[in-house]
Amino acid sequence: MNKLVTEVLQGSVRAMARLITLVENEDPCSLEYLGAIYPHTGNAHVLGITGSPGTGKSTLTDRITTALRRRAQSVGIIAVDPSSPFTGGALLGDRIRMQRASGDSEVFIRSMATRGNLGGLARTTADVVKIMDAFGKDWIIVETVGVGQDEVDIVRTADTTIVVLAPGLGDTIQSMKAGVMEIADLYAVNKADRSGAEALLTEVKLRVEQDAEIKKTLWQAPVLKTVALDDQGTESLLDAVVSHRNFLKQSGNFEIVRREKAREETLSLLKEEISRTMVEKILGNGRFEALIDDIVAFRKDPYTSVQEIVGTIFPDSE
Amino acid sequence: MNKLVTEVLQGSVRAMARLITLVENEDPCSLEYLGAIYPHTGNAHVLGITGSPGTGKSTLTDRITTALRRRAQSVGIIAVDPSSPFTGGALLGDRIRMQRASGDSEVFIRSMATRGNLGGLARTTADVVKIMDAFGKDWIIVETVGVGQDEVDIVRTADTTIVVLAPGLGDTIQSMKAGVMEIADLYAVNKADRSGAEALLTEVKLRVEQDAEIKKTLWQAPVLKTVALDDQGTESLLDAVVSHRNFLKQSGNFEIVRREKAREETLSLLKEEISRTMVEKILGNGRFEALIDDIVAFRKDPYTSVQEIVGTIFPDSE
Repeated sequence: MNKLVTEVLQGSVRAMARLITLVENEDPCSLEYLGAIYPHTGNAHVLGITGSPGTGKSTLTDRITTALRRRAQSVGIIAVDPSSPFTGGALLGDRIRMQRASGDSEVFIRSMATRGNLGGLARTTADVVKIMDAFGKDWIIVETVGVGQDEVDIVRTADTTIVVLAPGLGDTIQSMKAGVMEIADLYAVNKADRSGAEALLTEVKLRVEQDAEIKKTLWQAPVLKTVALDDQGTESLLDAVVSHRNFLKQSGNFEIVRREKAREETLSLLKEEISRTMVEKILGNGRFEALIDDIVAFRKDPYTSVQEIVGTIFPDSE
Repeated sequence: MNKLVTEVLQGSVRAMARLITLVENEDPCSLEYLGAIYPHTGNAHVLGITGSPGTGKSTLTDRITTALRRRAQSVGIIAVDPSSPFTGGALLGDRIRMQRASGDSEVFIRSMATRGNLGGLARTTADVVKIMDAFGKDWIIVETVGVGQDEVDIVRTADTTIVVLAPGLGDTIQSMKAGVMEIADLYAVNKADRSGAEALLTEVKLRVEQDAEIKKTLWQAPVLKTVALDDQGTESLLDAVVSHRNFLKQSGNFEIVRREKAREETLSLLKEEISRTMVEKILGNGRFEALIDDIVAFRKDPYTSVQEIVGTIFPDSE
């Protein structure tokens, strides 16, 4: 087996960091390394934490991490920032997280920002989860910094997902679209000492009950109050996360969820690899540039041309 | 030719709206329709407008639209909102835009929100641009509501792009990452009557000058002040946009930009179609589900398996 992979499996933090970098940079060897690591995965519980900016997600992640450490669990944190090219969010986040990390060698923190396409970011997150898992982390927290559909996709990597809400941010019933309801296994109403917290709590609980009734789900997402700044409610929240994990395992849903995740990840990996190989082949010969010349000159149109190319690859597909 | 396509080319607004819906819904016929429409495109000038939330992009888009109408130009607006599943942004935006639209039948406005993946949204935007172009709109404005790397990708559809900034939002030199500098053909410092506007103007100008010097660009992005709320600076901004268009045409850059766009769009269409066909074929037989079973049971790993599948499609690729 490759030396780097062996070192990761033996618990070298430096090797883990290097392997993550290779994966992030889409190093040609990374698929082979990930393949070698895969059989050693599946032990960590993956906790997703997401929500609007300003809800206090990072502070809450910090508190949960400390609570997990009190329970003698090792923790890996992936802070994903599909952030704006207009704001310095990622930089600022890194600085804050580096402070947090400095105290505890059992907590490994990795920030990831947008690089290339967003589909890629979700996949890279899944790969980094596997690396931390194989390294031996008991818990892996995927924290999304920012907001958007992208986060929903990224958080699908998790076994248990906390959606963090806070009063005064417009996180009302109307704003909670279907995607959020689908991914939330727990809700944390953070900043619960602020005005509007009770109303938000009632509102979300009602919505969750309605949703559970319609969908006849076995698990009804608990809605818990936290004040992350004062470390209030963290233990109860973590207890609820553990309850969800136990529910997954006892109900048999764990296998279903993990299979669905494996399916999604394999499919997206397959799409990416096919695209990559295809593009290499097409850009390798001059035919593609000739086609673009024809398209620009309106001698051909892109839509019919693409269908023709696909038809030559999969001759029986039409 | 297809009846719907004929009606679009004859200027039926209803047909245009229907065709856009077909494209958005990824109707199986949409590629054929887009192919039929393609020869009738290439006449409209595509103006991208992007920037952080709170800069007043929508108001500025509104003012520019009115200014274009004063110049007897017909306008199509595509308001793209890769918005949060956590906020009601898209809804609110729709309401505002519907008010704007109500006055002028020569202005066609279409909102598009995230559906599926974001790469798809950029491509759909490009397709809708083509439909409005073939319909006969002189100008097509692609306005992104929100913020993120996605917007940068979407705005690449444009011939000319305005990046809107405003004082007091943290839009400083540090926050202007490379991606933004690359897409900006013009900067509008909006809300220029507020404090901090002059400092922001000076800062951005300096940055643009440095950038132009390093890259030896022929076009140095003008930085203009606007107060969209009071319709101040709109005509000058539009004059600058027209100057950029003239620059593109006179310098020969227009052909280069359009070729690059055609290349990008064709490539992304090709990737998508190959993925789609591939997935259909793979999901069509039971082998993929059997593979997932093997992966979940750790008998196989996804990374090696995917490489094997790709190897069977492109036997000579390794």
